[in-house]
Amino acid sequence: MVRLGRVVVVGVGLIGGSVGMAVRARRLAGRVVGVGRDGEDLGEAVRLGAIDEASTDLDLAAAGADLVAVCTPVAGIAATVRLVAAVAPAGVLVVDAGSTKRTVVEGVESDDRARVVFVGGHPLAGSERSGVGAAAADLFEGRVCVLTPTPRTPEERLRRARSFWASLGCRLVELDPAAHDRAVALTSHLPHAVAAALAGAVPEGMLGLAAGAYRDGTRVAAAETALWAGIFLENRRPVLDALDRFDAGLAVFRRALAAGDEPGLREWWDDARARRRQFESPADQD
Amino acid sequence: MVRLGRVVVVGVGLIGGSVGMAVRARRLAGRVVGVGRDGEDLGEAVRLGAIDEASTDLDLAAAGADLVAVCTPVAGIAATVRLVAAVAPAGVLVVDAGSTKRTVVEGVESDDRARVVFVGGHPLAGSERSGVGAAAADLFEGRVCVLTPTPRTPEERLRRARSFWASLGCRLVELDPAAHDRAVALTSHLPHAVAAALAGAVPEGMLGLAAGAYRDGTRVAAAETALWAGIFLENRRPVLDALDRFDAGLAVFRRALAAGDEPGLREWWDDARARRRQFESPADQD
Repeated sequence: MVRLGRVVVVGVGLIGGSVGMAVRARRLAGRVVGVGRDGEDLGEAVRLGAIDEASTDLDLAAAGADLVAVCTPVAGIAATVRLVAAVAPAGVLVVDAGSTKRTVVEGVESDDRARVVFVGGHPLAGSERSGVGAAAADLFEGRVCVLTPTPRTPEERLRRARSFWASLGCRLVELDPAAHDRAVALTSHLPHAVAAALAGAVPEGMLGLAAGAYRDGTRVAAAETALWAGIFLENRRPVLDALDRFDAGLAVFRRALAAGDEPGLREWWDDARARRRQFESPADQD
Repeated sequence: MVRLGRVVVVGVGLIGGSVGMAVRARRLAGRVVGVGRDGEDLGEAVRLGAIDEASTDLDLAAAGADLVAVCTPVAGIAATVRLVAAVAPAGVLVVDAGSTKRTVVEGVESDDRARVVFVGGHPLAGSERSGVGAAAADLFEGRVCVLTPTPRTPEERLRRARSFWASLGCRLVELDPAAHDRAVALTSHLPHAVAAALAGAVPEGMLGLAAGAYRDGTRVAAAETALWAGIFLENRRPVLDALDRFDAGLAVFRRALAAGDEPGLREWWDDARARRRQFESPADQD
Protein backbone atom coordinates (compact mmCIF):
# COMPACT_ATOMS: atom_id res chain seq x y z
CA MET A 1 0.00 0.00 0.00
CA VAL A 2 0.96 3.65 -0.38
CA ARG A 3 2.80 4.80 2.73
CA LEU A 4 0.55 6.87 4.97
CA GLY A 5 1.50 10.08 6.66
CA ARG A 6 -0.41 10.45 9.91
CA VAL A 7 -2.36 7.52 11.33
CA VAL A 8 -4.58 8.18 14.34
CA VAL A 9 -5.73 5.35 16.58
CA VAL A 10 -8.69 6.21 18.81
CA GLY A 11 -8.83 3.86 21.79
CA VAL A 12 -5.44 2.30 22.44
CA GLY A 13 -6.37 -1.02 24.06
CA LEU A 14 -5.79 -4.56 22.82
CA ILE A 15 -7.03 -3.88 19.26
CA GLY A 16 -6.03 -0.22 18.90
CA GLY A 17 -2.64 -0.87 20.44
CA SER A 18 -2.08 -3.77 18.07
CA VAL A 19 -3.08 -1.61 15.08
CA GLY A 20 -0.49 0.93 16.19
CA MET A 21 2.20 -1.69 16.71
CA ALA A 22 1.49 -3.35 13.36
CA VAL A 23 1.57 -0.01 11.50
CA ARG A 24 4.83 0.96 13.17
CA ALA A 25 6.47 -2.46 12.76
CA ARG A 26 5.64 -2.49 9.06
CA ARG A 27 6.57 1.17 8.62
CA LEU A 28 3.23 1.90 6.99
CA ALA A 29 3.00 5.46 8.28
CA GLY A 30 5.12 8.44 9.10
CA ARG A 31 3.58 8.88 12.52
CA VAL A 32 1.08 7.01 14.71
CA VAL A 33 -0.90 9.13 17.15
CA GLY A 34 -2.93 7.48 19.89
CA VAL A 35 -6.01 9.16 21.29
CA GLY A 36 -7.62 8.28 24.59
CA ARG A 37 -9.06 9.73 27.76
CA ASP A 38 -6.63 8.25 30.25
CA GLY A 39 -3.17 9.83 30.23
CA GLU A 40 -1.67 6.90 32.13
CA ASP A 41 -2.89 4.32 29.62
CA LEU A 42 -1.62 6.49 26.78
CA GLY A 43 1.75 6.78 28.48
CA GLU A 44 1.95 3.02 28.66
CA ALA A 45 1.04 2.80 24.96
CA VAL A 46 3.98 5.08 24.12
CA ARG A 47 6.33 3.11 26.38
CA LEU A 48 5.26 -0.16 24.75
CA GLY A 49 5.82 1.24 21.27
CA ALA A 50 2.18 1.05 20.23
CA ILE A 51 2.10 4.73 19.24
CA ASP A 52 4.62 7.48 18.53
CA GLU A 53 2.72 10.12 20.45
CA ALA A 54 -0.36 10.45 22.60
CA SER A 55 -3.20 12.93 22.72
CA THR A 56 -6.35 13.38 24.74
CA ASP A 57 -7.71 15.85 22.17
CA LEU A 58 -9.44 14.04 19.31
CA ASP A 59 -10.05 17.23 17.26
CA LEU A 60 -6.43 18.20 17.36
CA ALA A 61 -5.18 14.69 16.63
CA ALA A 62 -7.55 14.09 13.71
CA ALA A 63 -6.61 17.30 11.96
CA GLY A 64 -4.07 16.29 9.32
CA ALA A 65 -4.82 12.56 9.60
CA ASP A 66 -4.62 10.33 6.53
CA LEU A 67 -6.24 7.42 8.32
CA VAL A 68 -8.17 7.19 11.59
CA ALA A 69 -8.80 3.78 13.14
CA VAL A 70 -11.59 3.92 15.72
CA CYS A 71 -10.95 1.09 18.18
CA THR A 72 -13.24 2.07 21.05
CA PRO A 73 -16.05 -0.06 22.52
CA VAL A 74 -18.89 -0.48 20.02
CA ALA A 75 -21.40 1.80 21.71
CA GLY A 76 -19.23 4.88 21.06
CA ILE A 77 -17.91 4.14 17.58
CA ALA A 78 -20.50 5.87 15.36
CA ALA A 79 -20.38 9.12 17.35
CA THR A 80 -16.59 9.09 17.26
CA VAL A 81 -16.54 8.54 13.49
CA ARG A 82 -18.90 11.50 13.02
CA LEU A 83 -16.69 13.70 15.20
CA VAL A 84 -13.59 12.67 13.25
CA ALA A 85 -15.29 13.30 9.90
CA ALA A 86 -16.17 16.80 11.01
CA VAL A 87 -12.56 17.81 11.74
CA ALA A 88 -10.31 15.60 9.60
CA PRO A 89 -9.14 16.45 6.06
CA ALA A 90 -11.67 15.61 3.33
CA GLY A 91 -9.39 12.84 2.02
CA VAL A 92 -9.25 10.93 5.31
CA LEU A 93 -10.12 7.23 5.52
CA VAL A 94 -11.89 6.25 8.75
CA VAL A 95 -12.06 2.57 9.74
CA ASP A 96 -13.28 0.88 12.86
CA ALA A 97 -12.79 -2.48 14.55
CA GLY A 98 -16.14 -2.92 16.29
CA SER A 99 -17.51 -6.40 16.98
CA THR A 100 -20.96 -5.43 15.70
CA LYS A 101 -21.61 -3.55 12.49
CA ARG A 102 -25.29 -2.77 11.76
CA THR A 103 -25.83 -0.13 14.43
CA VAL A 104 -22.35 1.30 13.86
CA VAL A 105 -22.79 1.64 10.10
CA GLU A 106 -26.32 3.06 10.46
CA GLY A 107 -25.04 5.56 13.00
CA VAL A 108 -22.25 6.63 10.67
CA GLU A 109 -24.38 6.76 7.52
CA SER A 110 -26.89 9.06 9.16
CA ASP A 111 -24.19 11.73 8.66
CA ASP A 112 -23.30 12.60 5.06
CA ARG A 113 -19.81 13.75 5.84
CA ALA A 114 -19.01 10.63 7.89
CA ARG A 115 -20.58 8.26 5.35
CA VAL A 116 -18.18 9.14 2.53
CA VAL A 117 -14.98 8.60 4.55
CA PHE A 118 -15.91 5.44 6.46
CA VAL A 119 -15.51 1.71 5.87
CA GLY A 120 -16.73 -0.53 8.67
CA GLY A 121 -14.58 -3.47 9.64
CA HIS A 122 -14.16 -6.20 12.21
CA PRO A 123 -10.83 -7.98 12.58
CA LEU A 124 -11.52 -11.33 14.27
CA ALA A 125 -8.62 -10.96 16.64
CA GLY A 126 -10.11 -10.38 20.05
CA SER A 127 -9.04 -12.09 23.21
CA GLU A 128 -10.16 -12.45 26.78
CA ARG A 129 -7.26 -10.16 27.59
CA SER A 130 -7.59 -6.43 27.27
CA GLY A 131 -5.52 -3.28 27.37
CA VAL A 132 -2.46 -2.22 25.45
CA GLY A 133 -0.35 -4.54 27.60
CA ALA A 134 -1.88 -7.45 25.67
CA ALA A 135 -1.38 -5.81 22.25
CA ALA A 136 0.98 -7.32 19.66
CA ALA A 137 2.27 -6.26 16.24
CA ASP A 138 1.32 -9.66 14.80
CA LEU A 139 -2.20 -9.83 16.29
CA PHE A 140 -3.83 -9.58 12.86
CA GLU A 141 -1.48 -11.96 11.07
CA GLY A 142 -3.59 -14.51 9.21
CA ARG A 143 -6.82 -13.39 10.90
CA VAL A 144 -10.00 -12.69 9.03
CA CYS A 145 -11.11 -9.05 8.84
CA VAL A 146 -14.71 -8.60 7.78
CA LEU A 147 -15.33 -5.38 5.87
CA THR A 148 -18.94 -4.18 5.74
CA PRO A 149 -19.28 -1.63 2.94
CA THR A 150 -22.76 -0.59 1.87
CA PRO A 151 -24.01 0.69 -1.49
CA ARG A 152 -23.28 4.16 -0.10
CA THR A 153 -19.60 3.44 0.61
CA PRO A 154 -17.30 5.15 -1.96
CA GLU A 155 -15.38 2.51 -3.94
CA GLU A 156 -12.13 4.44 -3.50
CA ARG A 157 -12.40 4.31 0.30
CA LEU A 158 -13.22 0.62 0.15
CA ARG A 159 -10.07 -0.03 -1.87
CA ARG A 160 -7.97 1.87 0.64
CA ALA A 161 -9.60 0.04 3.58
CA ARG A 162 -8.90 -3.33 1.94
CA SER A 163 -5.31 -2.32 1.39
CA PHE A 164 -4.93 -1.13 5.00
CA TRP A 165 -6.25 -4.27 6.72
CA ALA A 166 -4.44 -6.54 4.26
CA SER A 167 -1.21 -4.70 5.02
CA LEU A 168 -1.66 -5.61 8.71
CA GLY A 169 -1.79 -9.29 7.72
CA CYS A 170 -5.56 -9.82 7.57
CA ARG A 171 -7.44 -12.08 5.18
CA LEU A 172 -10.43 -10.08 3.90
CA VAL A 173 -14.09 -11.03 3.78
CA GLU A 174 -16.90 -8.65 2.77
CA LEU A 175 -20.44 -8.86 4.10
CA ASP A 176 -23.28 -6.45 4.51
CA PRO A 177 -23.51 -5.20 8.09
CA ALA A 178 -26.61 -7.18 9.09
CA ALA A 179 -25.23 -10.43 7.62
CA HIS A 180 -22.01 -9.84 9.55
CA ASP A 181 -23.95 -9.38 12.76
CA ARG A 182 -26.00 -12.56 12.27
CA ALA A 183 -22.84 -14.55 11.56
CA VAL A 184 -20.77 -13.30 14.50
CA ALA A 185 -23.77 -13.70 16.81
CA LEU A 186 -23.27 -17.43 16.16
CA THR A 187 -19.51 -17.64 15.72
CA SER A 188 -18.41 -15.26 18.49
CA HIS A 189 -21.15 -13.76 20.67
CA LEU A 190 -22.86 -17.09 21.37
CA PRO A 191 -19.56 -18.76 22.36
CA HIS A 192 -18.95 -15.91 24.78
CA ALA A 193 -22.41 -16.18 26.37
CA VAL A 194 -22.08 -19.96 26.61
CA ALA A 195 -18.61 -19.70 28.17
CA ALA A 196 -19.95 -17.38 30.85
CA ALA A 197 -22.96 -19.60 31.56
CA LEU A 198 -20.62 -22.58 31.85
CA ALA A 199 -18.24 -20.70 34.13
CA GLY A 200 -21.10 -19.79 36.44
CA ALA A 201 -22.66 -23.26 36.46
CA VAL A 202 -19.86 -24.83 38.50
CA PRO A 203 -20.10 -24.04 42.23
CA GLU A 204 -16.97 -22.58 43.77
CA GLY A 205 -16.47 -25.64 45.98
CA MET A 206 -16.26 -27.93 42.94
CA LEU A 207 -13.69 -25.92 40.98
CA GLY A 208 -10.92 -28.17 42.28
CA LEU A 209 -12.40 -30.96 40.16
CA ALA A 210 -12.57 -28.85 37.00
CA ALA A 211 -9.88 -29.52 34.42
CA GLY A 212 -9.23 -28.97 30.73
CA ALA A 213 -12.80 -29.05 29.42
CA TYR A 214 -13.89 -26.36 31.89
CA ARG A 215 -10.70 -24.35 31.43
CA ASP A 216 -11.01 -24.09 27.66
CA GLY A 217 -14.79 -23.89 27.63
CA THR A 218 -14.76 -20.86 29.93
CA ARG A 219 -11.62 -19.04 28.80
CA VAL A 220 -13.39 -16.11 27.16
CA ALA A 221 -15.58 -15.57 30.24
CA ALA A 222 -12.53 -13.74 31.63
CA ALA A 223 -13.13 -10.94 29.10
CA GLU A 224 -14.13 -7.42 30.10
CA THR A 225 -17.65 -6.98 31.41
CA ALA A 226 -18.34 -3.54 29.93
CA LEU A 227 -17.05 -4.54 26.51
CA TRP A 228 -19.26 -7.62 26.32
CA ALA A 229 -22.39 -6.12 27.82
CA GLY A 230 -22.05 -3.50 25.08
CA ILE A 231 -21.58 -6.03 22.28
CA PHE A 232 -24.58 -8.13 23.37
CA LEU A 233 -26.83 -5.08 23.57
CA GLU A 234 -25.72 -3.77 20.17
CA ASN A 235 -26.49 -7.14 18.62
CA ARG A 236 -29.49 -8.15 20.69
CA ARG A 237 -31.82 -9.76 18.14
CA PRO A 238 -29.16 -11.88 16.35
CA VAL A 239 -27.77 -13.02 19.72
CA LEU A 240 -31.23 -14.04 20.90
CA ASP A 241 -31.69 -15.98 17.66
CA ALA A 242 -28.31 -17.66 18.17
CA LEU A 243 -29.36 -18.65 21.71
CA ASP A 244 -32.51 -20.24 20.26
CA ARG A 245 -30.43 -22.26 17.86
CA PHE A 246 -28.02 -23.36 20.59
CA ASP A 247 -30.87 -24.27 22.96
CA ALA A 248 -32.57 -26.35 20.30
CA GLY A 249 -29.37 -28.36 19.77
CA LEU A 250 -28.82 -28.90 23.48
CA ALA A 251 -32.47 -29.95 23.85
CA VAL A 252 -31.90 -32.76 21.33
CA PHE A 253 -29.05 -33.99 23.52
CA ARG A 254 -31.16 -33.72 26.66
CA ARG A 255 -34.06 -35.67 25.19
CA ALA A 256 -31.77 -38.45 23.95
CA LEU A 257 -30.05 -38.65 27.33
CA ALA A 258 -33.30 -38.64 29.31
CA ALA A 259 -34.60 -41.44 27.10
CA GLY A 260 -31.37 -43.45 27.40
CA ASP A 261 -31.21 -43.31 23.60
CA GLU A 262 -27.61 -44.31 22.86
CA PRO A 263 -27.91 -44.21 19.04
CA GLY A 264 -29.46 -40.75 19.35
CA LEU A 265 -26.63 -39.55 21.60
CA ARG A 266 -24.04 -40.94 19.22
CA GLU A 267 -25.63 -39.33 16.20
CA TRP A 268 -25.83 -35.98 17.99
CA TRP A 269 -22.21 -36.16 19.11
CA ASP A 270 -21.02 -37.32 15.68
CA ASP A 271 -22.68 -34.32 14.01
CA ALA A 272 -21.07 -31.90 16.46
CA ARG A 273 -17.71 -33.61 16.11
CA ALA A 274 -17.92 -33.42 12.31
CA ARG A 275 -18.63 -29.67 12.48
CA ARG A 276 -15.69 -29.18 14.80
CA ARG A 277 -13.47 -31.07 12.35
CA GLN A 278 -14.69 -28.91 9.47
CA PHE A 279 -13.60 -25.90 11.52
CA GLU A 280 -10.11 -27.33 12.09
CA SER A 281 -9.61 -28.53 8.51
CA PRO A 282 -11.84 -26.71 6.05
CA ALA A 283 -11.79 -28.53 2.71
CA ASP A 284 -11.24 -25.34 0.78
CA GLN A 285 -8.94 -23.42 3.09
CA ASP A 286 -7.24 -20.60 1.27
CA MET B 1 6.06 -46.85 47.07
CA VAL B 2 7.21 -50.47 47.21
CA ARG B 3 8.35 -51.52 43.77
CA LEU B 4 5.73 -53.65 42.04
CA GLY B 5 6.41 -56.85 40.16
CA ARG B 6 3.88 -57.26 37.39
CA VAL B 7 1.54 -54.41 36.45
CA VAL B 8 -1.25 -55.15 33.99
CA VAL B 9 -2.96 -52.36 32.07
CA VAL B 10 -6.30 -53.32 30.52
CA GLY B 11 -7.16 -50.96 27.66
CA VAL B 12 -4.03 -49.30 26.31
CA GLY B 13 -5.41 -46.02 24.96
CA LEU B 14 -4.70 -42.45 26.07
CA ILE B 15 -5.12 -43.18 29.79
CA GLY B 16 -3.94 -46.80 29.92
CA GLY B 17 -0.98 -46.03 27.68
CA SER B 18 -0.03 -43.11 29.90
CA VAL B 19 -0.27 -45.30 33.01
CA GLY B 20 2.10 -47.76 31.37
CA MET B 21 4.52 -45.04 30.29
CA ALA B 22 4.49 -43.41 33.72
CA VAL B 23 5.08 -46.74 35.50
CA ARG B 24 7.94 -47.58 33.16
CA ALA B 25 9.51 -44.12 33.24
CA ARG B 26 9.49 -44.11 37.02
CA ARG B 27 10.60 -47.74 37.22
CA LEU B 28 7.73 -48.58 39.53
CA ALA B 29 7.35 -52.15 38.29
CA GLY B 30 9.36 -55.08 37.02
CA ARG B 31 7.13 -55.54 33.99
CA VAL B 32 4.16 -53.77 32.42
CA VAL B 33 1.77 -55.96 30.45
CA GLY B 34 -0.87 -54.39 28.22
CA VAL B 35 -4.11 -56.18 27.51
CA GLY B 36 -6.42 -55.35 24.64
CA ARG B 37 -8.46 -56.83 21.85
CA ASP B 38 -6.68 -55.30 18.89
CA GLY B 39 -3.23 -56.75 18.16
CA GLU B 40 -2.27 -53.77 16.01
CA ASP B 41 -3.02 -51.22 18.75
CA LEU B 42 -1.08 -53.35 21.22
CA GLY B 43 1.86 -53.53 18.84
CA GLU B 44 1.88 -49.73 18.64
CA ALA B 45 1.78 -49.56 22.45
CA VAL B 46 4.90 -51.73 22.64
CA ARG B 47 6.66 -49.69 19.94
CA LEU B 48 5.84 -46.46 21.78
CA GLY B 49 7.18 -47.84 25.04
CA ALA B 50 3.83 -47.78 26.84
CA ILE B 51 4.10 -51.46 27.79
CA ASP B 52 6.81 -54.13 27.92
CA GLU B 53 4.62 -56.83 26.43
CA ALA B 54 1.16 -57.26 24.99
CA SER B 55 -1.55 -59.84 25.49
CA THR B 56 -5.05 -60.39 24.19
CA ASP B 57 -5.73 -62.91 26.98
CA LEU B 58 -6.86 -61.17 30.16
CA ASP B 59 -6.92 -64.38 32.26
CA LEU B 60 -3.37 -65.22 31.37
CA ALA B 61 -2.11 -61.65 31.84
CA ALA B 62 -3.81 -61.13 35.20
CA ALA B 63 -2.40 -64.33 36.69
CA GLY B 64 0.61 -63.23 38.72
CA ALA B 65 -0.31 -59.54 38.63
CA ASP B 66 0.46 -57.29 41.61
CA LEU B 67 -1.62 -54.45 40.23
CA VAL B 68 -4.20 -54.29 37.46
CA ALA B 69 -5.27 -50.90 36.11
CA VAL B 70 -8.55 -51.14 34.19
CA CYS B 71 -8.54 -48.28 31.67
CA THR B 72 -11.37 -49.34 29.35
CA PRO B 73 -14.51 -47.31 28.53
CA VAL B 74 -16.76 -46.99 31.59
CA ALA B 75 -19.49 -49.37 30.45
CA GLY B 76 -17.12 -52.36 30.60
CA ILE B 77 -15.11 -51.56 33.74
CA ALA B 78 -17.10 -53.39 36.44
CA ALA B 79 -17.30 -56.63 34.45
CA THR B 80 -13.57 -56.48 33.72
CA VAL B 81 -12.74 -55.92 37.40
CA ARG B 82 -14.85 -58.95 38.34
CA LEU B 83 -13.07 -61.09 35.73
CA VAL B 84 -9.67 -59.94 36.97
CA ALA B 85 -10.58 -60.62 40.60
CA ALA B 86 -11.55 -64.17 39.67
CA VAL B 87 -8.16 -65.03 38.18
CA ALA B 88 -5.58 -62.73 39.79
CA PRO B 89 -3.65 -63.54 42.98
CA ALA B 90 -5.56 -62.81 46.22
CA GLY B 91 -3.14 -59.97 47.03
CA VAL B 92 -3.78 -58.05 43.80
CA LEU B 93 -4.81 -54.38 43.81
CA VAL B 94 -7.25 -53.46 41.04
CA VAL B 95 -7.77 -49.82 40.15
CA ASP B 96 -9.69 -48.15 37.35
CA ALA B 97 -9.68 -44.78 35.65
CA GLY B 98 -13.34 -44.45 34.67
CA SER B 99 -14.95 -41.02 34.31
CA THR B 100 -18.01 -42.09 36.29
CA LYS B 101 -17.90 -43.99 39.55
CA ARG B 102 -21.28 -44.90 41.05
CA THR B 103 -22.31 -47.56 38.55
CA VAL B 104 -18.74 -48.87 38.32
CA VAL B 105 -18.35 -49.22 42.10
CA GLU B 106 -21.81 -50.77 42.50
CA GLY B 107 -21.03 -53.22 39.73
CA VAL B 108 -17.76 -54.20 41.40
CA GLU B 109 -19.16 -54.40 44.94
CA SER B 110 -21.89 -56.80 43.85
CA ASP B 111 -19.06 -59.35 43.73
CA ASP B 112 -17.37 -60.20 47.04
CA ARG B 113 -14.08 -61.22 45.53
CA ALA B 114 -13.87 -58.07 43.38
CA ARG B 115 -14.94 -55.77 46.21
CA VAL B 116 -11.95 -56.57 48.45
CA VAL B 117 -9.29 -55.92 45.79
CA PHE B 118 -10.72 -52.80 44.15
CA VAL B 119 -10.33 -49.05 44.68
CA GLY B 120 -12.20 -46.86 42.22
CA GLY B 121 -10.40 -43.84 40.84
CA HIS B 122 -10.65 -41.10 38.25
CA PRO B 123 -7.54 -39.21 37.18
CA LEU B 124 -8.69 -35.88 35.69
CA ALA B 125 -6.36 -36.15 32.76
CA GLY B 126 -8.55 -36.78 29.75
CA SER B 127 -8.24 -35.04 26.44
CA GLU B 128 -10.13 -34.75 23.18
CA ARG B 129 -7.36 -36.92 21.76
CA SER B 130 -7.49 -40.66 22.11
CA GLY B 131 -5.36 -43.71 21.55
CA VAL B 132 -1.92 -44.68 22.75
CA GLY B 133 -0.42 -42.27 20.23
CA ALA B 134 -1.60 -39.43 22.48
CA ALA B 135 -0.31 -41.05 25.69
CA ALA B 136 2.49 -39.46 27.71
CA ALA B 137 4.53 -40.47 30.77
CA ASP B 138 3.78 -37.12 32.41
CA LEU B 139 0.03 -37.05 31.71
CA PHE B 140 -0.82 -37.37 35.41
CA GLU B 141 1.78 -34.91 36.67
CA GLY B 142 0.02 -32.43 38.97
CA ARG B 143 -3.44 -33.66 37.97
CA VAL B 144 -6.13 -34.47 40.49
CA CYS B 145 -7.03 -38.12 40.89
CA VAL B 146 -10.32 -38.71 42.71
CA LEU B 147 -10.40 -41.96 44.68
CA THR B 148 -13.84 -43.27 45.56
CA PRO B 149 -13.48 -45.83 48.34
CA THR B 150 -16.62 -46.99 50.14
CA PRO B 151 -17.06 -48.32 53.70
CA ARG B 152 -16.52 -51.76 52.17
CA THR B 153 -13.11 -50.94 50.67
CA PRO B 154 -10.25 -52.55 52.66
CA GLU B 155 -8.04 -49.86 54.20
CA GLU B 156 -4.91 -51.66 53.07
CA ARG B 157 -5.99 -51.55 49.40
CA LEU B 158 -6.90 -47.88 49.75
CA ARG B 159 -3.41 -47.13 51.06
CA ARG B 160 -1.84 -48.96 48.14
CA ALA B 161 -4.11 -47.19 45.63
CA ARG B 162 -3.19 -43.79 47.09
CA SER B 163 0.46 -44.68 46.86
CA PHE B 164 0.10 -45.85 43.25
CA TRP B 165 -1.67 -42.77 41.88
CA ALA B 166 0.54 -40.43 43.90
CA SER B 167 3.60 -42.16 42.47
CA LEU B 168 2.34 -41.25 38.96
CA GLY B 169 2.29 -37.58 39.99
CA CYS B 170 -1.39 -37.19 40.94
CA ARG B 171 -2.78 -34.98 43.69
CA LEU B 172 -5.35 -37.08 45.56
CA VAL B 173 -8.93 -36.25 46.49
CA GLU B 174 -11.36 -38.73 48.07
CA LEU B 175 -15.11 -38.65 47.53
CA ASP B 176 -17.88 -41.16 47.73
CA PRO B 177 -18.83 -42.42 44.26
CA ALA B 178 -22.15 -40.55 43.97
CA ALA B 179 -20.61 -37.25 45.13
CA HIS B 180 -17.85 -37.72 42.56
CA ASP B 181 -20.42 -38.26 39.83
CA ARG B 182 -22.43 -35.17 40.78
CA ALA B 183 -19.28 -33.05 40.79
CA VAL B 184 -17.85 -34.23 37.47
CA ALA B 185 -21.30 -33.96 35.87
CA LEU B 186 -20.82 -30.21 36.40
CA THR B 187 -17.05 -29.86 36.02
CA SER B 188 -16.49 -32.20 33.07
CA HIS B 189 -19.57 -33.80 31.52
CA LEU B 190 -21.53 -30.55 31.23
CA PRO B 191 -18.58 -28.76 29.56
CA HIS B 192 -18.40 -31.60 27.04
CA ALA B 193 -22.13 -31.45 26.24
CA VAL B 194 -22.01 -27.67 25.94
CA ALA B 195 -18.95 -27.81 23.68
CA ALA B 196 -20.74 -30.19 21.34
CA ALA B 197 -23.93 -28.09 21.31
CA LEU B 198 -21.82 -25.02 20.53
CA ALA B 199 -19.92 -26.83 17.78
CA GLY B 200 -23.18 -27.85 16.14
CA ALA B 201 -24.82 -24.44 16.49
CA VAL B 202 -22.60 -22.78 13.87
CA PRO B 203 -23.62 -23.60 10.29
CA GLU B 204 -20.83 -24.96 8.10
CA GLY B 205 -20.92 -21.88 5.87
CA MET B 206 -20.14 -19.58 8.79
CA LEU B 207 -17.14 -21.48 10.14
CA GLY B 208 -14.82 -19.12 8.29
CA LEU B 209 -15.91 -16.39 10.69
CA ALA B 210 -15.30 -18.50 13.79
CA ALA B 211 -12.15 -17.70 15.74
CA GLY B 212 -10.70 -18.21 19.20
CA ALA B 213 -13.91 -18.27 21.24
CA TYR B 214 -15.39 -21.00 19.06
CA ARG B 215 -12.11 -22.89 18.81
CA ASP B 216 -11.58 -23.14 22.56
CA GLY B 217 -15.26 -23.49 23.41
CA THR B 218 -15.62 -26.53 21.13
CA ARG B 219 -12.23 -28.21 21.56
CA VAL B 220 -13.51 -31.20 23.52
CA ALA B 221 -16.28 -31.83 20.98
CA ALA B 222 -13.54 -33.55 18.97
CA ALA B 223 -13.47 -36.36 21.56
CA GLU B 224 -14.54 -39.93 20.77
CA THR B 225 -18.23 -40.49 20.24
CA ALA B 226 -18.45 -43.95 21.82
CA LEU B 227 -16.50 -42.88 24.90
CA TRP B 228 -18.73 -39.89 25.56
CA ALA B 229 -22.05 -41.52 24.76
CA GLY B 230 -21.04 -44.10 27.35
CA ILE B 231 -20.07 -41.55 30.00
CA PHE B 232 -23.29 -39.56 29.59
CA LEU B 233 -25.43 -42.70 29.86
CA GLU B 234 -23.54 -43.96 32.94
CA ASN B 235 -24.10 -40.60 34.65
CA ARG B 236 -27.50 -39.72 33.27
CA ARG B 237 -29.27 -38.19 36.28
CA PRO B 238 -26.38 -35.97 37.46
CA VAL B 239 -25.79 -34.79 33.87
CA LEU B 240 -29.48 -33.90 33.48
CA ASP B 241 -29.29 -31.96 36.77
CA ALA B 242 -26.16 -30.17 35.53
CA LEU B 243 -27.99 -29.23 32.32
CA ASP B 244 -30.81 -27.76 34.41
CA ARG B 245 -28.33 -25.65 36.31
CA PHE B 246 -26.62 -24.47 33.14
CA ASP B 247 -29.93 -23.68 31.43
CA ALA B 248 -31.10 -21.65 34.42
CA GLY B 249 -27.95 -19.51 34.25
CA LEU B 250 -28.23 -18.96 30.51
CA ALA B 251 -31.92 -18.06 30.95
CA VAL B 252 -30.92 -15.21 33.29
CA PHE B 253 -28.66 -13.88 30.53
CA ARG B 254 -31.39 -14.25 27.92
CA ARG B 255 -33.98 -12.40 30.00
CA ALA B 256 -31.58 -9.54 30.72
CA LEU B 257 -30.65 -9.29 27.05
CA ALA B 258 -34.26 -9.44 25.82
CA ALA B 259 -35.14 -6.66 28.27
CA GLY B 260 -32.12 -4.54 27.30
CA ASP B 261 -31.14 -4.66 30.97
CA GLU B 262 -27.50 -3.52 30.90
CA PRO B 263 -26.96 -3.61 34.70
CA GLY B 264 -28.42 -7.12 34.73
CA LEU B 265 -26.10 -8.24 31.91
CA ARG B 266 -23.10 -6.74 33.67
CA GLU B 267 -23.94 -8.40 36.96
CA TRP B 268 -24.40 -11.76 35.25
CA TRP B 269 -21.13 -11.46 33.37
CA ASP B 270 -19.27 -10.23 36.46
CA ASP B 271 -20.41 -13.28 38.44
CA ALA B 272 -19.28 -15.66 35.69
CA ARG B 273 -16.00 -13.83 35.31
CA ALA B 274 -15.36 -14.02 39.06
CA ARG B 275 -15.96 -17.79 39.06
CA ARG B 276 -13.57 -18.18 36.14
CA ARG B 277 -10.96 -16.20 38.07
CA GLN B 278 -11.43 -18.39 41.12
CA PHE B 279 -10.70 -21.37 38.90
CA GLU B 280 -7.48 -19.80 37.60
CA SER B 281 -6.27 -18.57 41.00
CA PRO B 282 -7.83 -20.48 43.86
CA ALA B 283 -7.14 -18.65 47.12
CA ASP B 284 -6.20 -21.83 48.93
CA GLN B 285 -4.41 -23.74 46.22
CA ASP B 286 -2.45 -26.59 47.71
